[in-house]
Amino acid sequence: MSDRVKYVLEESRLPRTWYNIQADLPQPLPPVLHPGTKKPIGPDDLAPLFPEALIRQEVSLEREIEIPDPVRDIYRQWRPSPLFRARRLEKALQTPARIYYKWEGVSPAGSHKPNTAVPQAYYNREAGIRRIATETGAGQWGSSLAFAGALFGIDVTVYMVRVSYNQKPYRRALMETWGARCVASPSNETESGRAILAQRPDHPGSLGIAISEAVEVAAKSGDTKYALGSVLNHVLMHQTVAGIEAMEQMALAEDYPDVIVGCTGGGSNFAGIAFPFLGAQLRGGRKVRIVAVEPAACPSLTRGKYAYDFGDTSHLTPLIKMHTLGSTFTPPGFHAGGLRYHGMGPLVSHVQELGLIESKAYPQTACFSAGVQFAKTESLLPAPEANHAVRGAIDEALRCREEGVSRAILFNLCGHGHFDMQAYMDYLSGKLVDQDYNPQELAMALSGLPSVG
Amino acid sequence: MSDRVKYVLEESRLPRTWYNIQADLPQPLPPVLHPGTKKPIGPDDLAPLFPEALIRQEVSLEREIEIPDPVRDIYRQWRPSPLFRARRLEKALQTPARIYYKWEGVSPAGSHKPNTAVPQAYYNREAGIRRIATETGAGQWGSSLAFAGALFGIDVTVYMVRVSYNQKPYRRALMETWGARCVASPSNETESGRAILAQRPDHPGSLGIAISEAVEVAAKSGDTKYALGSVLNHVLMHQTVAGIEAMEQMALAEDYPDVIVGCTGGGSNFAGIAFPFLGAQLRGGRKVRIVAVEPAACPSLTRGKYAYDFGDTSHLTPLIKMHTLGSTFTPPGFHAGGLRYHGMGPLVSHVQELGLIESKAYPQTACFSAGVQFAKTESLLPAPEANHAVRGAIDEALRCREEGVSRAILFNLCGHGHFDMQAYMDYLSGKLVDQDYNPQELAMALSGLPSVG
Repeated sequence: MSDRVKYVLEESRLPRTWYNIQADLPQPLPPVLHPGTKKPIGPDDLAPLFPEALIRQEVSLEREIEIPDPVRDIYRQWRPSPLFRARRLEKALQTPARIYYKWEGVSPAGSHKPNTAVPQAYYNREAGIRRIATETGAGQWGSSLAFAGALFGIDVTVYMVRVSYNQKPYRRALMETWGARCVASPSNETESGRAILAQRPDHPGSLGIAISEAVEVAAKSGDTKYALGSVLNHVLMHQTVAGIEAMEQMALAEDYPDVIVGCTGGGSNFAGIAFPFLGAQLRGGRKVRIVAVEPAACPSLTRGKYAYDFGDTSHLTPLIKMHTLGSTFTPPGFHAGGLRYHGMGPLVSHVQELGLIESKAYPQTACFSAGVQFAKTESLLPAPEANHAVRGAIDEALRCREEGVSRAILFNLCGHGHFDMQAYMDYLSGKLVDQDYNPQELAMALSGLPSVG
Repeated sequence: MSDRVKYVLEESRLPRTWYNIQADLPQPLPPVLHPGTKKPIGPDDLAPLFPEALIRQEVSLEREIEIPDPVRDIYRQWRPSPLFRARRLEKALQTPARIYYKWEGVSPAGSHKPNTAVPQAYYNREAGIRRIATETGAGQWGSSLAFAGALFGIDVTVYMVRVSYNQKPYRRALMETWGARCVASPSNETESGRAILAQRPDHPGSLGIAISEAVEVAAKSGDTKYALGSVLNHVLMHQTVAGIEAMEQMALAEDYPDVIVGCTGGGSNFAGIAFPFLGAQLRGGRKVRIVAVEPAACPSLTRGKYAYDFGDTSHLTPLIKMHTLGSTFTPPGFHAGGLRYHGMGPLVSHVQELGLIESKAYPQTACFSAGVQFAKTESLLPAPEANHAVRGAIDEALRCREEGVSRAILFNLCGHGHFDMQAYMDYLSGKLVDQDYNPQELAMALSGLPSVG
C-alpha cells in the first residue's frame, strides 16, 4: 500500500459508460404501476415527462450504457473527481482502519448532483426540449440543473421547498446567477400548489409537494419536461460514474473496501458509490459490506414500509415499489434538506430487501459532531447530508479500533457545506437539536398507502 | 495544441521549491525602514512578530527555497491545482484568443490563501509558537489560517473588519468550525482598537486597523506571533507554487501565455501566478505582458504614490516602499473585501516601477458582469476579487477579437464566491452600484505620508 493521500485519475480514465445494476440483479425490480389500472406502465405513460432516451435508460437491462461525448466533455471539467485517504482523521481517531473518501464537492455546483443534471439536460436538448421544470429541497439539485441548463440553452424552473427558499437565499442566488427561475413551493403557479395553500397558506412545503408542482407543469404543457434529481433508476445510474472511478482509484491505492458507506435521501449518491462494487460482487467478485445512512427524522429504509406508493404528495406520479414513510408524511425541518424525502429509490429499496445492503439512522447532532471532527482534521467542510456518511464511516472506524482490526472503509463525501453555514452556526452555539418525527403522523401516512392488487 | 479543457499534474509534479523573484530583479528591492530611525531594519526588529525562518525568507536572495515536506503533505490534498482552457467562454466571446485559468478555489478554504497559511503555520509551530494573531477582510485569509492552525495545533485569533464580520456571518462560522476565534475589528481588545472606537464607536473597520490590532497583540505578548495574508515578500513567494505549476501545465497544453492577468489587493495571488513567468523573462526567456487588475475604488497601483508608508493605520509596522493611497485612506465598502487595502506588496510595486508589469482599474459592476458571464459559461462561480481578473481577461480576449489576433491569455481564478452570494444577489437585482473613493480623502491621506530622508 502506498503512503499517498490523494488518488487522481488522468482525464483519459474518465469512464466511457455508466453502470446499470439492473443487469446483475438476482431478481428483477418490481414494475412501476399505473395508479388507475394498477398495471405496469409503458414508455408512453412517461413520455409527457421525460425524453425517450431517459425512459429507455430507466428500464434498460444492459449492463453498460455509453456516456455521450458532449456529457463527457462537461464531466471532464471536474471529473475524474479525487479519492482521498483520510490519514489525518485516522490519526485523530487512533484507528487501525484505512478510511477513504470520494470527494464530489469539486463540481461547479459543489455536489454529486451534476453527474445526472448534465446528462438529463443533454438528452432533453437532443430531444428538442427548451424548458425543464424540477423541484429542489436544500438546493443542491436545483443549482446543478440550473448550471447544466445554462450550458445546453435550456430554461430551468425550480420549485424550491418554501422553508429552504426562505432559509437559503444564497442557494437561490446561485441558481439565479446560472439563469434559472426559482419559485417557492407550494406556489400559486400550479393546481397542486394552490390546493395546498388553500388549506394552509403558510405551508412550509416538502419535496413531495414540490415534485407535484413540477410534474404538473410538465404534464400540462406541451413544451416542458420534468427532471428528478434522485430516486429514479436512470438518475442512480448516472451517479455510478463516481463508483466506477472509485474502483480504479482503490486499485491505485492497492486496496479494496471492506465497507462502503453513503448517505441516503432518494439514494443517488449512495448508489453512485456502492453499485459498481455491489455489481462486481453479484458477478462473483469480492463481497463488500454496504451501509446506507439516513436521518433518524426521516427514516425510510429503517422505519418505512416496502410497498407501492406515490412519489409525490398530490399523487400525480405512477406507483413505485420502495421503502416509504407514506406520501403524506412531512418530516421535521432538520438541516439535511436533501434527505427529507418520504421514499427511497426503488433500486436501493430492492437491494436492501434482497439483503445486499444494511441501513442505519442517525440524529442530526451526531452527524454534525462528525462533520466538525472531519473539518478539523481533513479540512473539507461537508454538507449536512454528507455528515451522515461521515458519521457512519467514523463509527465503522471506531469499531475497528475496538476490535483491533484494520478494515478499508470507503465513503462518498457527496458535497460541501458552504451554503449550509447556518446549520454549523446552530451546532457550534448549541442551538441545534434533534427533532424526531411524529410517530402518529407516520402511522397515519403508512395506513394511507395505496392498495395494490 | 491539444483539445483538452483541463490540465492536471500528477501529485509527483507538486513543486519542491518556491520561486523567489528577488534573485532575478534587475534592481534590488528598496529596504524596509525603521519608522523612528529611518534606517533599514534588521531581523531583530521583526523577531517579535515572525519566526526566524519567515524573516530569513523575507530578505532571501536565493532563487529557490525548499518547500518543507510537512507543508507539501498538506498541499497535496488539493495541489497541483487544475489549469483550465476556457473553451466555452471563448466560444461565447467569439474570440480567437486562447483563454486559460488556474483554479485555486479547490483548496479547503476555497482560495489561494492556504498556499501561504500552511507554511506560515508550519514555521510557527516549528519555532514552538502555539498562538497566532491575524487580520482578515472578506475572510478568505482568516479562514485559511484557521484551517492551517487546526492542522498544526495553533490557536488562531482573527481580527475581522467589522463591516465584513457583520455582513458575512457564514465566513465567520467557517473560521469557528475550524476552531479559530474571530473578533470584530476595531475591538476593545487592543489599544489600537480602543483608540479608534473612542473617536467613532460605530467605526466599520478597515484592513489597516485590523492589522494594527493583530500586530499589537503579537508585539505585546510573549507567546503570540503575527501572520499576514499578503503584501510581504515571503507571502508572495509562497504563492508562486501556483505559477510554477501553471508553467508546467501550459507546457502540457503546448502553449505559452502572451498575457497574464491577476487581481491585486496586496498582490499575493497576482505575484503567485505571474512571478515565475516574469522570472523566466528576466533570465532571458520569452517576454510576457503582465496586467494587474485592481478595483477603481481602491486604486493603489493606478492612482497611488510609490513611497514609503506604514502597513497599518495605527503606525505599528515598519515603513515599506510601495504604491500606497496613504495609511489613513479608507476605501468605500465595495464587495471585493480582499482588495480593500491602502497599499500594494513592495515586490509588485517595484516591478511596476521597473516597467515590467501594467495595471488597470475597474469598477465593481463591470467585474460582476464579467463574473456572471464566466459562471454561465465556465460554470464556476468566482469570488468578487477574482471577478476583477475575469474582467481583465475577457477584455484582453475581446481585444483579440477586434484585432483578429489569437493570443494566449492566462489568469488566476483565485477563489470561489460561495460566501459572497449577497453581492451576486445585489448585482442581479440591480442594487449593486459603483462607489468611487473620495478624492479629497485620498489627497489628504497622500499628503500625510511619512517623510523619509
